[in-house]
This record gives sequence, structure tokens and C-alpha cells, in this order.
Amino acid sequence: MENLEGRQSVFAALQARQRKFQVILISHGAHQEKFQDVLDLAAELQVPVKSVDRKELDAMAHGQTHGGIVALAGAKPRLSADALIDLIDKLKTPPLLLLIEGIEDARNLGFTLRSAEALGAHAVLIKKHVWDFDPVEVARPASGAYERLPLVQIDTIDPLIQLQRAGLRLFGCIAGTRRTIYDVEMTGPTILAIGGEKRGLSGAVRSICDNFVTIPCVSEATSLSLSHASGIILAEAMRQRLSMRPTPSP
Amino acid sequence: MENLEGRQSVFAALQARQRKFQVILISHGAHQEKFQDVLDLAAELQVPVKSVDRKELDAMAHGQTHGGIVALAGAKPRLSADALIDLIDKLKTPPLLLLIEGIEDARNLGFTLRSAEALGAHAVLIKKHVWDFDPVEVARPASGAYERLPLVQIDTIDPLIQLQRAGLRLFGCIAGTRRTIYDVEMTGPTILAIGGEKRGLSGAVRSICDNFVTIPCVSEATSLSLSHASGIILAEAMRQRLSMRPTPSP
Repeated sequence: MENLEGRQSVFAALQARQRKFQVILISHGAHQEKFQDVLDLAAELQVPVKSVDRKELDAMAHGQTHGGIVALAGAKPRLSADALIDLIDKLKTPPLLLLIEGIEDARNLGFTLRSAEALGAHAVLIKKHVWDFDPVEVARPASGAYERLPLVQIDTIDPLIQLQRAGLRLFGCIAGTRRTIYDVEMTGPTILAIGGEKRGLSGAVRSICDNFVTIPCVSEATSLSLSHASGIILAEAMRQRLSMRPTPSP
Repeated sequence: MENLEGRQSVFAALQARQRKFQVILISHGAHQEKFQDVLDLAAELQVPVKSVDRKELDAMAHGQTHGGIVALAGAKPRLSADALIDLIDKLKTPPLLLLIEGIEDARNLGFTLRSAEALGAHAVLIKKHVWDFDPVEVARPASGAYERLPLVQIDTIDPLIQLQRAGLRLFGCIAGTRRTIYDVEMTGPTILAIGGEKRGLSGAVRSICDNFVTIPCVSEATSLSLSHASGIILAEAMRQRLSMRPTPSP
């Protein structure tokens, strides 16, 4: 069972309809109007709502940022590789997936998911054997995207090979290669792979990349963080995809 | 006096030659070779180095991530608006400045500075009356960029007007405007202004923007974080600037 803290997280999770809710706890004296949308949706989905002491919420939650509402719910389900293939088959636009490897920080993962959703990624694949992130720490900066975005956890490259067979092209984002993200076409079915800051992409993922690309940077500066690099490469994929669409008439 | 923690922060600050150093403290038993570049540069700059108990460093530092080295130094100096104009005059490329308003989180500021440096910003302007960030929390994710990048703290729009008079164009990045960052030319002398997530850009800054632009996003998703938005708009400015250069021969 996990805690979801704050109006935004609880509402996003209800809307996403992915988790199993046990109960929603609202502190005595909290302004009901603030939570009306949550209460309406909870009623529709038959999730029980209880009124409790604020101190009880404080004791359950990380700090006091819950704003008077905490939900108890099952973990957000991960999508299986097979379910991902099904999802891709149903898309009306060429799939755009983000693969992250070696991310260690829950907050940076949250910001990465937020941008991934905003920039049109259809799912995020996380290559990690053990999911040791605190879900509250991921969910808070993700601003609802953690609940809505399909997440696939993989620990071998097999699902990637399966996706390549289904026609997706795997771009490995690495430093120091000549070809930039602006030199390649990311308008077709695409997986963008980004590695952690310590070790970069693993040898296993590198060995199957169709192409390597880099984000041009000032040479004497530090590198980009994984999280910012993801945002920038996804924004470029979106720019390319938008430029293919007919301009809407004014 | 501020603490700089860890080899990277201390070395970056020494290299940047902006702070006044009082002393560098290295824990007994730390591998000297690890710090050789720091020790050499400290000797060159006549900064004293002392060997102390590891516990003493632990007590001074935030947690135990200092890795055996802490420096005591004056605050990183802010650049005045006049000094910024001088700096701009000496540049060989059209100036690219980032203006941030309403950022509350030290870590996000750090990541923003890191990307700003990597993506070619010449200085970052922070519109904030009181500088209430913990410098260690800013410096750590900035990965040296906090030490190297010129920072200007402003609390009115007067310095911006001064920069506009000097020929810089002020682009305000806001949600929901029709013109995107891909529709405007950011190859000339440019200031990119981004506001905090709660309130966006202030009325005062909006009132003097030459142009408003947006980063295209998926409509039903959440917005981008300030920090990611900065990275994406700066990357686009860099893309435009690189595409003007002649392609290097292979």
C-alpha cells in the first residue's frame, strides 16, 4: 500500500484509474470545496472517504505538504512489454518512447516523467533491476504525470529488441558523437535512450542502438543532467513532429 | 563566509577565480592524489590548505557527501548590471542571457544554471529581492556552473530596460501564446525570460517583453517545470545559432 499526498496527486491518480484505492483521508476542518473534484470522482469510483485528525495525516505523510488529503492505494502498476506493444499498435501517431537507464534520484525521475508527458512521450521505459524509488518523491515533482504516463520497468534488453522488431528505431543519446539530435529524423516510431550521469548508457543498450546522437553543448562547460537532456531531446522530437503537420489556419 | 563541499565544487571555484578563499580543509587520511589538481591550484593562488579530522568536516558540511574536502570562502560575487553591459560588449557572439523569475527551489536553480552554461548562456539574471538560497544546495547540482557562470541579481526591471537599449531583445516564455520558440529568431542579442510555476512572469517583466513565446506541449498534460523549460528554450537558441555557422569540413 502506498500513500498519495496532496490534492493534485490524489486527483491525478483517481483520474488515471490505474491504482486500486483503499481509502481517501481528509483532515477535519479542511475546506471541502477545495476537494470537491476529488470527492465527486471518489464517489463515482466508489472509493471510501474518511475524515481524520490532521495530526494523523502529518504522521503518515512526508512532512506537511499534503494540504489535508492523503490516499492509501496500491502501487501504480507497471506496464508489461507485451502490453506496451499493444498500446503502440493502437496509437494514431508514430510511437515516441523514452528509455532511461541509471537514474538514481527520485526527484529527477519525477521531473523527467513530467516533461516526458508534456512533450508527447507515449510511455517511459526504465531499465533498472530493482525499483527502489520512494513513489511519493517521484510523484510530487511529476505533477500528475507519474499517475498518467505508462511506465515499463525492464531489466534486460529483450523488450527493446522486441520493439525494434516492431519497427521502432533506437537512438542512443551519448556525449561526444558527431551526429546531433538535429541531424536525425525522430518523426517515425522512435525510442530515445538516455543513460545516467555516472556511467552513461550500458554496453548492452549501446550494442543494439540504431544510431547515436548528441545534444550540442559548449565544450568547456559541464554536461547536461540526465533529466534536462531527456527534456531537450523530447522537445526536439516534438518540434520535428509538429513541423510535419499542416499549419492550422488562423 | 560560505562552505564549498566536495572536490568538484572547490576546484570549480578555484578555477573560476571569483571568490575570496580563506582556507581549504582536507581530512586526515584522504588520498592526496585525488586532490592533487586542487592542491596545485591552491598553491598557485596562495590559498592555505589544512589537514583536519574527518569528523570536523562532517560537522561543517551538509551530510557526508564532501568526500574529504571543504573550503571556506567568501560568497560568490554577483555581477552588477553595469558590469554585465561591459561583459556583453566584449563578447564575440551575440549575447544570450537567461532571466529567471520566481524560482524557489535551490536544487532546481542549480540544475538550471548547469544547463544554462552548457547551452551557451553568457550570464543568468535572477529577479529576486532577497537571495535566500542555500549556496551549497545550488552549487551541488550545478556541477561547477554556479562558480563559473556570471550571475546578476536584480530586483527591478531597470537593468532589463538598460539591456534592451543596448540592443538585446527580451523574449517572455509563457504558456498558451500562439507563437512558439521555433517561430522566432534567437540568433541576435537575446534575453530569454522564464517565470516561476506558481505565478509565471511578473506583470512588470511582461510589460517590457518584445515578444512572447511558448514551448509546444501536449495539451492534456501538465506544464513543464521552470528548470526544464529553461533548458529547452536555451537548447533551441543554441540550435538556431549553430545552424548559422558554416558546417565544419569532415
